[in-house]
Amino acid sequence: MPRHDAFTLALDAMGGDHAPDAVIKGASIVALRYPKMRFLFFGDQAQIEAKITRNRRLKKRSDIIHTDSVVAAEEKPSIALRKGRESSMWKAIQAVAEGKADAIVSGGNTGALMAMSKLILGSLPGIQRPAIASLMPTLHGDSVMLDLGANLECNAEQLFQFAIMGDAFARAALGLESPSLGLLNVGSEEMKGHESLREAHRRLRENRIGLNFYGFVEGDDIAKGTVDVVVTDGFTGNVALKTIEGTGQLVNRFLKRVITANLRSRLGYFIARAAFKKLKQQLDPQHYNGAVFLGLGGIVVKSHGGAQARGMANAIALTADTVIYGTKKRVIEELAALDLRAREQLQPEIQETAQAAALAENG
Amino acid sequence: MPRHDAFTLALDAMGGDHAPDAVIKGASIVALRYPKMRFLFFGDQAQIEAKITRNRRLKKRSDIIHTDSVVAAEEKPSIALRKGRESSMWKAIQAVAEGKADAIVSGGNTGALMAMSKLILGSLPGIQRPAIASLMPTLHGDSVMLDLGANLECNAEQLFQFAIMGDAFARAALGLESPSLGLLNVGSEEMKGHESLREAHRRLRENRIGLNFYGFVEGDDIAKGTVDVVVTDGFTGNVALKTIEGTGQLVNRFLKRVITANLRSRLGYFIARAAFKKLKQQLDPQHYNGAVFLGLGGIVVKSHGGAQARGMANAIALTADTVIYGTKKRVIEELAALDLRAREQLQPEIQETAQAAALAENG
Repeated sequence: MPRHDAFTLALDAMGGDHAPDAVIKGASIVALRYPKMRFLFFGDQAQIEAKITRNRRLKKRSDIIHTDSVVAAEEKPSIALRKGRESSMWKAIQAVAEGKADAIVSGGNTGALMAMSKLILGSLPGIQRPAIASLMPTLHGDSVMLDLGANLECNAEQLFQFAIMGDAFARAALGLESPSLGLLNVGSEEMKGHESLREAHRRLRENRIGLNFYGFVEGDDIAKGTVDVVVTDGFTGNVALKTIEGTGQLVNRFLKRVITANLRSRLGYFIARAAFKKLKQQLDPQHYNGAVFLGLGGIVVKSHGGAQARGMANAIALTADTVIYGTKKRVIEELAALDLRAREQLQPEIQETAQAAALAENG
Repeated sequence: MPRHDAFTLALDAMGGDHAPDAVIKGASIVALRYPKMRFLFFGDQAQIEAKITRNRRLKKRSDIIHTDSVVAAEEKPSIALRKGRESSMWKAIQAVAEGKADAIVSGGNTGALMAMSKLILGSLPGIQRPAIASLMPTLHGDSVMLDLGANLECNAEQLFQFAIMGDAFARAALGLESPSLGLLNVGSEEMKGHESLREAHRRLRENRIGLNFYGFVEGDDIAKGTVDVVVTDGFTGNVALKTIEGTGQLVNRFLKRVITANLRSRLGYFIARAAFKKLKQQLDPQHYNGAVFLGLGGIVVKSHGGAQARGMANAIALTADTVIYGTKKRVIEELAALDLRAREQLQPEIQETAQAAALAENG
């Protein structure tokens, strides 16, 4: 991790099945790793305070902002947008918009979080659609996949932009210099797949902004780790992500079933239990907790609704890395480079944003 | 298995990486289970004969039809169609069209097999697009998923037809009275997903032909076995299938890695090795070998190109069940019922085919 300045995360303390406990414990677990990280907890003051008081180190680095309402897990995004303006989620996002926090983490309703984030933070200039990205386990360490469900149907331009965002995110979250990018398809030949996929393939192959494009990849390449970033539309990405989760659970259950089948297998398991514990850790969904909304005017991270403290800690750490490594700035720069070099149809604001970013860096 | 009349399978003896050995050995393994099954082997006479001679029981039930050429694994389907008319694959499909065989199994080039099958066998009247279906492992026994790649984009009518075909196939392959059907989506709420998915959902919910429709399912429901038949477009189905394969391999490799990490874990594994063997069997891709092309004028089964004898035996057994349980007739009947009851826009030939089928059954 590079040396970094102080930064602040806004935490929706009321989001998720185990809120506010898991949120506060999660923050406490990860606080040690980032000595310059501060927290703004949004939620029920009395509840949060009661728990934070026990942890003096966390308390020193935290502020609590009281909110009266919570967005329900099953609330329709449109209703949450209208009625949720006093909620912990809304106020936490607003803190990012107002520059009081550098990013926000929530374990609440995904649809509401995306809708509020779009409304409050807006999209980056030039970005047609924000995307959801997450880390995935592979044979060769972690990789990134996006979009995981924000956009069900995507055209070539949007897929191309997802590649840019995925590239920036992989540099931040995985620390890679030049992450390889693959487009998810049903075959590796150039002629295969939807028209929008073939067009995105052409544009990525011919990109002149330094994207390291591998080509098409298939479903089994996700777990193989063939590429560092798997780019796909939100429908396919969501199905693939949940298929991986389901298959992992299936294997886990089968494993349990055969191991507890008789005394002999139980004995073998007992002897090798440390190995199995390691396996469990390697495939632990809590380790991969944290889906990052990319392409917005600020960093928003969704923690799994069912995450416990350890899962929340991982989501917070991912958010911290995304802030420290400047994912947002990187996306803006690549979009600007695209504009300058390829002279493509992006809006003039990008250049302004990029120039402002460059000025801010040099000045 | 119900008592059944004699039937004949056409085998493309030259298709697949281990042909013709795996094809002949596979037939030999499964022949015992179906005493009234006969084989037509298409391929190089000398090679096949040399191997069959050693197995007297198989030889008695087999005929060899010599062919000179083989469709290459990487051949483009359009080229295979033009140049492959003397191939083992073409001749084997033709045997079904001519009524010399009840179904055909091939481990060769998938695209060529589908293209040739469409051309030679045609689609069932009323079926817009044939689909590819396969068995999948789940927590509650096997399930069926389709389409696995024949149709990348599907409208509501096509998805509805896939449900009919999946229903018929699940009755045959899984022996279920009233298989439950789910439409793969990114959420279970009715408002979610593409327009074509919502329309297919409405039509399936309102079906009056006895389809047991569960509703939308998500990626993790595939392995959970939430429904007996998962219906989806070929793009999503193909990605999901390969994602499952990839994830299974990943877990397998992780398991091997932790087990061989040290002496203690190796000892534990040694003691529990019978349990692990069972686990391996439960997840063995060879067990799930055999993708059935549904909706054609005849039953066509694609075996995995890399299948060994045991995998080929499973593909042949699946084909035999599909023939014995009358999957094709069932699809025709359901389409006819659809036509009679819902008076929808199906072509008149279906009624004729259904009437002919009914006559054949009663007469």
